[in-house]
This record gives sequence, structure tokens and C-alpha cells, in this order.
Amino acid sequence: MEGVDYLADERKKAQFDVDAMKIVWAGSRHTFEISDRISKLVASDPAFRKDDRTMLPRKELFKNTLRKATYAWQRIIELRLSEEEASKLRFYVDEPAFTDLHWGMFVPAIKGQGTDEQQQKWLPLAYKMQIIGCYAQTELGHGSNVQGLETTATFDPKTDEFIIHSPTLTSSKWWPGGLGKVSTHGVVYARLITDGKDHGVHGFIVQLRNLEDHTPLPGITLGDIGTKFGNGAYNTMDNGVLRFDNVRIPRDQMLMRVSQVTREGKYKQSNVPRQLVYGTMVYVRQSIVADASCALSRAVCIATRYSAVRRQFGSQNGGPETQVIDYKTQQSRLFPLLASAYAFRFVGEWLNWLYTDVTQRLQANDFSTLPEVHACTAGLKSLTTSVTADGIEECRKLCGGHGYLCSSGLPELFAVYVPACTYEGDNIVLLLQVARFLMKTASQLGAGKQPVGTIAYMGRIEHLMQCRSDVQNAEDWLKPSVVLEVFEARAARMSVACAQNLSKFTNPEEGFAELSADLVEAAVAHCQLIVVSKFIEKLQQDIPGKGVKKQLEVLSGIYYLFIIHKYQGDFIATSCINPKQASLANDQLRALYSQVRPNAIALVDAFNYTDHYLGSILGRYDGNVYPKLYDAAWKDPLNESDIPDGYHEYIRPLLKQQLRAARL
Amino acid sequence: MEGVDYLADERKKAQFDVDAMKIVWAGSRHTFEISDRISKLVASDPAFRKDDRTMLPRKELFKNTLRKATYAWQRIIELRLSEEEASKLRFYVDEPAFTDLHWGMFVPAIKGQGTDEQQQKWLPLAYKMQIIGCYAQTELGHGSNVQGLETTATFDPKTDEFIIHSPTLTSSKWWPGGLGKVSTHGVVYARLITDGKDHGVHGFIVQLRNLEDHTPLPGITLGDIGTKFGNGAYNTMDNGVLRFDNVRIPRDQMLMRVSQVTREGKYKQSNVPRQLVYGTMVYVRQSIVADASCALSRAVCIATRYSAVRRQFGSQNGGPETQVIDYKTQQSRLFPLLASAYAFRFVGEWLNWLYTDVTQRLQANDFSTLPEVHACTAGLKSLTTSVTADGIEECRKLCGGHGYLCSSGLPELFAVYVPACTYEGDNIVLLLQVARFLMKTASQLGAGKQPVGTIAYMGRIEHLMQCRSDVQNAEDWLKPSVVLEVFEARAARMSVACAQNLSKFTNPEEGFAELSADLVEAAVAHCQLIVVSKFIEKLQQDIPGKGVKKQLEVLSGIYYLFIIHKYQGDFIATSCINPKQASLANDQLRALYSQVRPNAIALVDAFNYTDHYLGSILGRYDGNVYPKLYDAAWKDPLNESDIPDGYHEYIRPLLKQQLRAARL
Repeated sequence: MEGVDYLADERKKAQFDVDAMKIVWAGSRHTFEISDRISKLVASDPAFRKDDRTMLPRKELFKNTLRKATYAWQRIIELRLSEEEASKLRFYVDEPAFTDLHWGMFVPAIKGQGTDEQQQKWLPLAYKMQIIGCYAQTELGHGSNVQGLETTATFDPKTDEFIIHSPTLTSSKWWPGGLGKVSTHGVVYARLITDGKDHGVHGFIVQLRNLEDHTPLPGITLGDIGTKFGNGAYNTMDNGVLRFDNVRIPRDQMLMRVSQVTREGKYKQSNVPRQLVYGTMVYVRQSIVADASCALSRAVCIATRYSAVRRQFGSQNGGPETQVIDYKTQQSRLFPLLASAYAFRFVGEWLNWLYTDVTQRLQANDFSTLPEVHACTAGLKSLTTSVTADGIEECRKLCGGHGYLCSSGLPELFAVYVPACTYEGDNIVLLLQVARFLMKTASQLGAGKQPVGTIAYMGRIEHLMQCRSDVQNAEDWLKPSVVLEVFEARAARMSVACAQNLSKFTNPEEGFAELSADLVEAAVAHCQLIVVSKFIEKLQQDIPGKGVKKQLEVLSGIYYLFIIHKYQGDFIATSCINPKQASLANDQLRALYSQVRPNAIALVDAFNYTDHYLGSILGRYDGNVYPKLYDAAWKDPLNESDIPDGYHEYIRPLLKQQLRAARL
Repeated sequence: MEGVDYLADERKKAQFDVDAMKIVWAGSRHTFEISDRISKLVASDPAFRKDDRTMLPRKELFKNTLRKATYAWQRIIELRLSEEEASKLRFYVDEPAFTDLHWGMFVPAIKGQGTDEQQQKWLPLAYKMQIIGCYAQTELGHGSNVQGLETTATFDPKTDEFIIHSPTLTSSKWWPGGLGKVSTHGVVYARLITDGKDHGVHGFIVQLRNLEDHTPLPGITLGDIGTKFGNGAYNTMDNGVLRFDNVRIPRDQMLMRVSQVTREGKYKQSNVPRQLVYGTMVYVRQSIVADASCALSRAVCIATRYSAVRRQFGSQNGGPETQVIDYKTQQSRLFPLLASAYAFRFVGEWLNWLYTDVTQRLQANDFSTLPEVHACTAGLKSLTTSVTADGIEECRKLCGGHGYLCSSGLPELFAVYVPACTYEGDNIVLLLQVARFLMKTASQLGAGKQPVGTIAYMGRIEHLMQCRSDVQNAEDWLKPSVVLEVFEARAARMSVACAQNLSKFTNPEEGFAELSADLVEAAVAHCQLIVVSKFIEKLQQDIPGKGVKKQLEVLSGIYYLFIIHKYQGDFIATSCINPKQASLANDQLRALYSQVRPNAIALVDAFNYTDHYLGSILGRYDGNVYPKLYDAAWKDPLNESDIPDGYHEYIRPLLKQQLRAARL
């Protein structure tokens, strides 16, 4: 029945103040209020409807995205939304579009790498969307290795121009979002060549399309790279291909904040430190971690609510079957993901602080924390996106067969999320960068240099190499100091073991390559420690609201005990804990599942997602799943007629044994 | 260039006879020859083209599937294909269709559960496809728990009919393939009610559509349940919804081989043993395991070939970059999946034998092996489908960004495969069934009953509880006896530990529920042991062909050493091995990766897949990836025009600051 809350009983079970938890999740009352208002604004506007998205053919889907993006911009102007509100609005519209790249990559690239004059020229155009820009870096044959890009920008001193050219097929720009059909301009990365000398990869502002009729400019080939994973998902985006046939641009369209080419064709560095670009990287990665907590929490919200709705087996005397959320197998898969969503939220919040901190340091010419910050953000990007991608798919499986229907929202959520594991640094490549930092830190221990920040624990290496956990009963696993020491010892010992094995190779690079799979594992251990320690730090703050802190303690316990259980091989093999202690950790984990059970629905309500944003019949706030699933089925294009297209041509001749009449 | 084999150098590296390996993979020369011939027949027929599949809107996609299925049937008749050849042809057409259910579920259900007369009446119609059938079991509110189905079949002695009825919304049939738009008949499962008494769930043959005009019969509501995960994928199938409003069918349409309803409405059992139905279950599950090896090997073939084509980083002195297949991180993710594909192939082959064996036993009224066979097939279905689903997605990630394009074939392969984790028994539910069997076996040890088959090792429990591996160096891990003992000891000890923990509960069912997550882990250990032992058994056979056996030994080593490494927590915590031995296993694993590297391309060539069947530009036999990716992009509907639909309505008004002119 409409209006009935089928999950009301579940909500009554909660042992904490959900409204207070909503503030904790949002990060502040201010952010909560904006999110709440804007998400409801989007949800209540039929122009932003998205429940038909997975059924539209590509061209209609794409056209519809253009409509929504333009309409969103109109609303932003009409309602005079602040930058923060505008960005929330785009977020809740929840559809990848060219605007993501325009605001998220094109504008920041000009801000970060353009001179003051370049900013003054280009930013006003971009801010009003009089030009639409993309970020054209990756090429058909070149992804992770930016230094391997082949596109050239050759300076022609005769005309004071750069000639942008695609010398090979593999040098075709490939993947940039917004490039294929919409962008009028792009920040294009190309090898700078002056006077026959290759100065490596630099960024250039290149106009791609005629502003009057949108046709590609002479010498420029533009297109979409084709259909991608999933229904809807990223197919709303025109990821594009771009080729240059000796396209000329004025010299002042090279982004010259850090290095310049003079009128004479001389290449020189400015006095702006190159390290400044790392600030942008930290910013991008912290937002990826924040996105991970969003995506994972959406999936968890859907799976948790449907697990409370769905019943299977266990009927006694003809009564109802058991809610699947009451099964330990369901809890042991679902609750660690719920805990991870919260863990990633808090580590994302901390990364936001780190970004502010590093920005201030860079402005004061203090580059000392950069290597640690780089390793930390690279590692957290990798860890959180991998867990989230796998977690969304696990949530889909936790919904049983119905999770396979697009109306569950989960297939599309998976397909739209999973590229995060590959873009902005492939997750394994990033972990190897973390490992390099760990090996460098390990090799410098004792040389008087004290490690700082997230790697500070390596300064206590002697203690960490010999300490043993004194856990004697399950409850001991609830002590933060016990947990931190175990995670620190495991990470430190895995790093040291790798360093020792590396030292056996005469060629260190060969050793690094040979042992890279082990190094990746050491890097994961280090990253998990960071997340655990930031969760624990969060709990040392004052957290208002009845029962809120208690629930977060339970979730933090689930987060780290699940890791201890899943990676018990690491912990036991390095003698950080013994098998008995591992078994006690598992006992405590089970006990915590029981504690979170009555609060599960309230803990996902705290994300404060509208049904529009969730986009899932299984995850409906009111739990009225089955009637709505049934209704939704009839909207499929295949149900437009009782007798399917093709019946007369194929099915009937088959049934009537008249195959010669079939149009085959 | 066309005609050039860009992977020729890789193929020259192979140290074994690829043609001989093709026979091993196929299972026999006979099977190889049929597969080879039929797959080429399908590949060379443009009517079976599938490269446009991910771009078609649902209705066109579905109509196209109807065409292919009917055309396939025409070819089968024209070419007078044998049953084996016909089934291969459907396999290589590689598109889920109503015919899968007709041949795979409807016909076998009538064969297995129908009386001789029922078979004589219905099978000839089905064999000629004069009727098309589906298998209507699951309901909107009822999946795993068949006993919870709500549809009723009430006997009316006045008219000698059953009244089929859907009493609630949740009783709507939901999911059956072929049901929504095509099937004229279904085997429908419903609660049999005679004289007010509920006899539980039974099967009935019900006509659903008029054979003249295909309209649903009176009282029957039929439709498609909506779009599912992925582009193409299972959207070629009309998974359906079905409701009955007091639909009457003659009494003789209840499938009466095992139990009957008499003219008077008396319910009685026949003398045919109920256990016979288990034969079908073993058959279905062994084919699921065989499918797992197919799906995984396809993904591995694509990822392996593209890993040899793709180069990233490591360029020295301007030379080419390093092939990504040479990175240990790539090898350590890819080669265990390659080994798993072979492992699943061989365990599937063995399950095929087991099916023959159990069929013979059932016919001789020997039901003694049934519990063990049930546990074994349930466990192997769960293990192989889970690893395969995750493995396909891992292969997709191993292809970097391009794996996200539908033209890579991997998104569709994932989306079409992943329901295997849920259908025919949810994978976690199945593992709990295995665990129940393990606990029963453990509780009966010492009671004189000797465990047989795959659980025979539990008969040596005393030895297995106290043995310790004597591995002293890495090569010791190549001894099959050493490996088998540690896998047996680990599985046995995990089972015994669970049994001991269970015994602490006064209510065993409560204990089973509480410890279910641990029980699942014990079940996985048991299933992994089965796969390892069948791989090792395979190697004890005579295997002809230069170097073939040697390569399989390497793959078997990778398979079990990868498990030892990944699950080292189990092995070490149960004291089967110590940390030093775990580390030696890891060293040996790395060494085996180097041995498989030069043979990798040949090992995937041995699957003998045509480019048509693979359906992947990244996995092309000739390695000519980039030009073909580039060409394929232009075929996307979005590239039909340079200026996208929606430019005039949305983009231009945006750029020109004339939002009021936009059609929003």
C-alpha cells in the first residue's frame, strides 16, 4: 500500500539518534543542510527523472543527458546557487556528463597550469560555459605512462605557433570524457618539441570545434569511442577519440605557469615550483576517496534495506520466513561493507584536511611532506576504489536474483563506478608507488631521518619488530591501542621482509620487479593501517548524539576485525598475533554483528539518500519492494505489445514447421 | 596490416605441442573435431554476427535473437546435425535464448518427471518445436526456498482438473527464461492441494499461449520482467512474469512419474524412487562447472593476448615499452586464472564421469553415494562460478581502460556470466549444504562408517590432525603427495574445529546459524581440495604430446600454490604449514610464473576459440588490436553524425547564453 512504511519496525529498533548520525555522515550541519535541500530539489523535479535510463538506446540516452546538463545549469543560474550548491546539484543529478570534465578537469587545469594572463583570458569564458572544455591526455596506446604519450606540439618560430600532430594511430587521443561530441576546447597533452629537441609532455589549450556550427575545426578528427560497460552508466558520456593533422595554435595557448617557450623558441622553466601540481593531485584523489564512500554507501543502503524486506527459509508453523538480514552469512558479507563505507567517509574527511595542510605548506615552499602525502593519497585511492567496486558487486549478489535487474539500481551503480579502479592511476600501479615509498623509508631507517605523518610508525621499528599482541580474550580486541599496534607491526614487518628480500638482488630494479606482487601486499597492509588509524582517531573526538559514538565504535570494530580475519595469514605469518588470538578476533567480530543488526536500517538511513538518488526499487525507503518491482516490469519496451516483434517472421514459422516462410 | 600475425613471435616461444593440448582441453579428439568444425561454421556465417549486439535497443536485440535462434534451428535441420552437433551449434551462437530453456529445462523436466504416456504425448511436440516450453519455478517473493512457493494447483474432482492460481502478488512466477514472450507451454511448479490438503510443490505442464495467434490464454498474464545487467548479455532472453487467475488444466498434465493424483483425488507415491531427480541435478551442475571453465578461459584468453600486445613503461633508450605480460603483478593476477580455467576444465570432466557413475547406481537402486555426490556437486558449482565471475572482472581490469569498452567483449562476458552465482542454488546457500554434510561426516567419524569418494580423506582423520608438512625448500612444493596432504589436513582441521565449536551449543541449529560464516570457509577448503586432487589425478594419466604434461604440471602447481598463498591464514592457523613453508610456497609460485610466461599465448590458443566466439577486439588471434579498436569506434550510433542530436536544443543555447531558447 502507498504511504505505509514497511520498514517502520526496523527503524524502531535503532539504539541511537539517527539525525545526529546524519550530521556526522555529512561532516557538518552546514553540509547536511545543503545536501538535504539540494537532493530533495533534484528528486522532486520530474526533469531529472532517471528510472528510464537503463532502457534508452544510446543516442536517446545521450541526448537526454545533454538536456539534463543544460537544464541543471539553467536551474543553477535561476536559483543563484553557490558554487558548493551547484556542485551538489550536479552530484545529485547523478549522471556522468561533459560538465564533470569541464568543471572537474578543464577549469582546474587552466587554474593550476595557466599563467595569470591565461587564466584571465580563458576562465571567464569557461565559467559562463561560453566554451566547453575537456582534458585530453590518454591516447589509444598510452594510459598509465604519461611520459609515453606520442602526440607532438612542435614550435614553429616562423609563425609563432605550435603544430599539434598525431604521428601514429596509437597517438590518437582516446577516452577523454566530453571530447567526442560536446567539447569546443580541450587541454591537450603533447610532447613539446622546439628546435628538434623533445622537452617531454606539456599541456596546451586547443580549440576543437567551430563555435558557430559545432563542426570539428580543419585538421581535427573527433568521435565517440563506442559503447561502454553497462546500461546507462557511463554511456551518457561522450568519451572521445581525437586526431590532429598538423593543427596550428598560437604560442600563448601552451599552459606556461611552470615552463615557457619564448618567442624565439627557447624553452625555460619559470620560478614557480613544479611541485605545485601535486596539490591538484591530492585534491583529485581526496575527492575519489569521498566518492568511494558515496558509491559504497549507496550499494550498502540498497542491500541492507532489501535484506530486511526479503525473507527466505526458516518458516515455523506456517509463519513468515526469516528476514535474510538475520542470517550470519548475510551479516558477515554485508556489515563489513557497511563499516567500510563509514571508514572511507572518515578517511576521506581526513584527506580533505590533508589537502588544506599540503596546500598551505606548498605555498610556504615547504615540500617536506610531499612524498608521504603522495604515497598516502595514491594508496588510499587504490584501496578504497578496489574495495568499493568489489563491494557494490557483493551487495548486488546479496540481493539474490533481483539484484540482477536494472531496476535494482545495482548493475548500473557497479558499471558506472568500476572505472575508478583504472582512471587517475591504475590501482596496482599506485600500490607499487606506495611500495617504493615504503622501501625507501625502510632503507633510510637508522640514518637519523625520522619518518612523519602516516609513516611515523616506522620510526618505532625496533619495538614493532619484536612486539607480540597480549590479547587474551575476545573483548581485548576492542582496545584501540591493541589494534593499532597489531596493524602497525604487520605493516612494518611486511615492509621490512620485502626490503630484506630486495637486498638479495644485485640489481635493485630487477628485485623490485621480481618481488612486485609481495610489495603490493605490503602496500595494502600500510593503507589498511591508515584507514584503521583514522577511524580510531575520529572516535577520539567528541561526537554528540545519543548512542552515535557507540555505534561508530561497533562499526570501527567490524572494520578492523574483518581485516584481521580476512588477512589473518599476514598477521599470523608475521607473528603479530597467534592463531588463538585470530580466533578470538573472529569471535568478537561475530558478537559485533549482533550489535549492529538492530541498528542496520538506521545506519543506512543516516546517509540521507533520497529514493531518486538511490535509484533502486530494492532500496526504497519504505520497503514496498514487490509491488513496485512488478509495476516497473511493465514499462520495459519489450512489453509494449503482448506479441513480440519477430513473432510472425520467426516464432510462428518455427511452431508451424514452415521454416521456409521465415525471413531468415 | 591485415593478414599479419602480431603474436607470431609469442607463438614461437611455446615449449609444447599446441595441437596436442587442444585435444586435452577438448577432452577427446572427437569432441575437438566437432567443436572445431561447428565453431568455424558459426563464425563464417554472417547471419550469426554479434559485434553489433551491445549497441542494439532491447526490442531490436530481442528480435534479432529470435531470428538467430530460428535460423540456427533451420541450419540444424538442413545440415542434419546430430544432437551433439546441434548443441555445439547453439553453444557457439553464444546468445542466451528461449531455446536454452526449451532444450535444457523443459524437455529434461518432462523426461525426468513425466510418466511414459506423458513423455509419448509431449516429447515429440517439443522435439519438433511445435510447442516451445519453459521452466516456471521461482516466484517474485521466492527464490532459493522452493518449498516456500505460493502458486497453488487445487484438484477439482467434479471436472477432473487442476485449478492453477496465483493467490498473492509475491506468488507471481518471476525470472523463468523464455517465459515472457516466446514460450507456448511451461512446466509450472505449484503446491498440490487435494481435498483441502497441501502436498507440497509439484510440476504441471501448462499451456500458456494460443498456438494460433500467440495470445496468452484466458486467465493468464504474461510479460517480460525488464532490463537486466549489461549491454546485450541476458537481455536477449525474455525472463518472464506469469500470473494465473484460476486456470484449469486436465489432471493428466501433472507430471506423475513420482507421485500421482487419482481420478478420485487421492494423492499417492509411485514406486519410482524420488532420488532419481538427483540425477538431473548432478547433470545440471556438472554442465555449470563445464560452463565455468569456458567462460573463465574466454576471459583469460582475451586478457592474455592483450597483455602480450599492450606495452606500458620500461622503454629503454627510446626502444619499445615493456609488454605488460612481463610484469610480475600482471602475471600474479593472470596466471592463477589461466591455471584455474584448466583446473575447472578437468574437474568438470571428472564430474561428467561422476554423473555417469551415479546414474548407473541410481538405476541399480544404489543410493549410497548420493549425499557425497550432492555435497561435491553443490560445492563445485559454488566454487567454480564464484571464481569465474570474479576472474572475468579481474581479466577486464587486467586490460586497463580498454577493457571497459564493450568492444573488448569483457563487460558483456561478465554480465552474461554472473547470474551463474545465483541460479541453480545461491553460492552461499550451497556452501552451507556442503558444510552440513561435512559436519555430519565429522560427527560420524569413529562410528565405524567409512567416508567414501571426495570425503574419503576424513577417514584418515587421526593422521590428518597431527601431521605436519616437511617442506624444506621451494621445490618440495612440487611433490603432489606433499600438496595433497596439506590440503587434506587443512580441510579436515577446519571441519573438525567447526564441529567442536558447534558442540558447545545446546541447540545445534542455533549453533549452525551462529557459526555459518566459519562453516562456509570450511566448505570452501573442502571444495578447493577436490579441485586440486582432480588436477593431480589428471596428471597421473598418460598425456601425449611434446611438453604437454609438463605445462599442465606447471599450471597445476600455480593453481594450488596460489591457493596456499591466498589462504595462507587457514594453512598456518591450523598448523598445517609454518610461515617459512608458506614463504617457500610463494617463492615456488613466482618461479612457476616465469615458466608459464613463454607458453602463455599457446596455452590460451589451445582453447581453440574463434575470433567470433571470443567476441573481443582485445583478444583477436592476430593481435592487431589498435587499428581494429579505432575502426570499431566509428560504428557506434553516436557517430552517425558529427553534430550530436541535441546540439541545437541544448548545447548551442548553452554556449550562446540563450538558455531561454533551449527546449528544457
